[in-house]
Amino acid sequence: MKSIDVCLSPDLMHLFDVKDKVVVVADILRATSCMVTAFAHGIESIKPYADLESCRASKTADNFIAGERNGEKVEGFDLGNSPFEYMEPSLQGKAINMTTTNGTQAIEKSKGAGVIAIGAFLNLSALAEFIIKEDRDLIIVCAGWKGRVNLEDTLFAGALAHLLKSKFNFACDAPMLAEAVYLQSKNDLVAAVSGSSHVQRLNRLNIHKDIAFCLTPDQYNIVPVMREASLSVI
Amino acid sequence: MKSIDVCLSPDLMHLFDVKDKVVVVADILRATSCMVTAFAHGIESIKPYADLESCRASKTADNFIAGERNGEKVEGFDLGNSPFEYMEPSLQGKAINMTTTNGTQAIEKSKGAGVIAIGAFLNLSALAEFIIKEDRDLIIVCAGWKGRVNLEDTLFAGALAHLLKSKFNFACDAPMLAEAVYLQSKNDLVAAVSGSSHVQRLNRLNIHKDIAFCLTPDQYNIVPVMREASLSVI
Repeated sequence: MKSIDVCLSPDLMHLFDVKDKVVVVADILRATSCMVTAFAHGIESIKPYADLESCRASKTADNFIAGERNGEKVEGFDLGNSPFEYMEPSLQGKAINMTTTNGTQAIEKSKGAGVIAIGAFLNLSALAEFIIKEDRDLIIVCAGWKGRVNLEDTLFAGALAHLLKSKFNFACDAPMLAEAVYLQSKNDLVAAVSGSSHVQRLNRLNIHKDIAFCLTPDQYNIVPVMREASLSVI
Repeated sequence: MKSIDVCLSPDLMHLFDVKDKVVVVADILRATSCMVTAFAHGIESIKPYADLESCRASKTADNFIAGERNGEKVEGFDLGNSPFEYMEPSLQGKAINMTTTNGTQAIEKSKGAGVIAIGAFLNLSALAEFIIKEDRDLIIVCAGWKGRVNLEDTLFAGALAHLLKSKFNFACDAPMLAEAVYLQSKNDLVAAVSGSSHVQRLNRLNIHKDIAFCLTPDQYNIVPVMREASLSVI
């Protein structure tokens, strides 16, 4: 039986060996929720950048650049970090280069894995199905907030671990912890997350609609996967 | 209002500023449970050593040395890591130098704090009372297992955070996570911990009695605190 592990913060990635494994990166509020939404609305590819200025310099006439730092859109970038921005018909078939505070850093730290897939509540069941088919050990990497663990990414890790539990072993205590947090909160994820530190930050930016959307499971039946240096849909 | 924060792994300590704060170190299975038990049974002082060989070299005719690595007593040491060893009348009034896989390392990383106190379920309420009197910001440091988060230390952090909640703010999401895990499991901590990775390891060493004891709240009304390089009771 294959195993599930959970890395609760990118600052703990040195403890995990990603080689040959499926790594699912989750930055629920809001980078990976944006990515899943973008692909569901016809975007062709997303290239993650850990560094802001490299992303800014990658702008051409043919692509879009998306930049978020500390929960806000970066000045001079085409797109920010709200999933609703990625539903625009004008983005269909386009390439996006994206950098965010936590999500794209977590992807950077996952390089070397057998497969890197993008996870969100929005594609939860599609992801579970994909992981079962891959039949490899799984590491769920929570993007957190500047190295700190956060509630929403842990809830996602718990939801995915819970869904896969009958087919995978838990590799250590982190999946148990994440599952316990999820089971404690699953009947009202929005209420559970409403007191979290990230939502306190986002509240100041008036994006309750984003939060409710990002916590809604199974809106899209797609799994974005890294190929070479870019994400695309299988 | 003062704040509570939780560091779920010593490998995340770089994210926390301990200066002027109360730091409670918890290694429930079993280093800090042993320390609390030892002081409750009249031991005079415990000096934590992060390094095994330095601890071994500190042996004199007047002291005892305690050493545990990977859940087992180290050969040539007087004492191991079972709380029941520390109830011996012959240890009363003595000094112990101690090194363990995770607990004494977590104490080392907490140096520079205003106060370093030793936490266990065994002294949970005494600890809460002590922290309220100190009236400083609090960081609960979970010793974990070789950098990984573990269930039993997280449950303790959640129990303490829950007890102090009406008088302290939660500084970030980690106290919320720990509290959620605790609330999910509080009616049967032994059952919750029975599937954990550490208990799987300890099961092989036949110490179910230790586990049940270490998860029992409020056996002792004492709080060991670091003074200079050693722990003693207030």
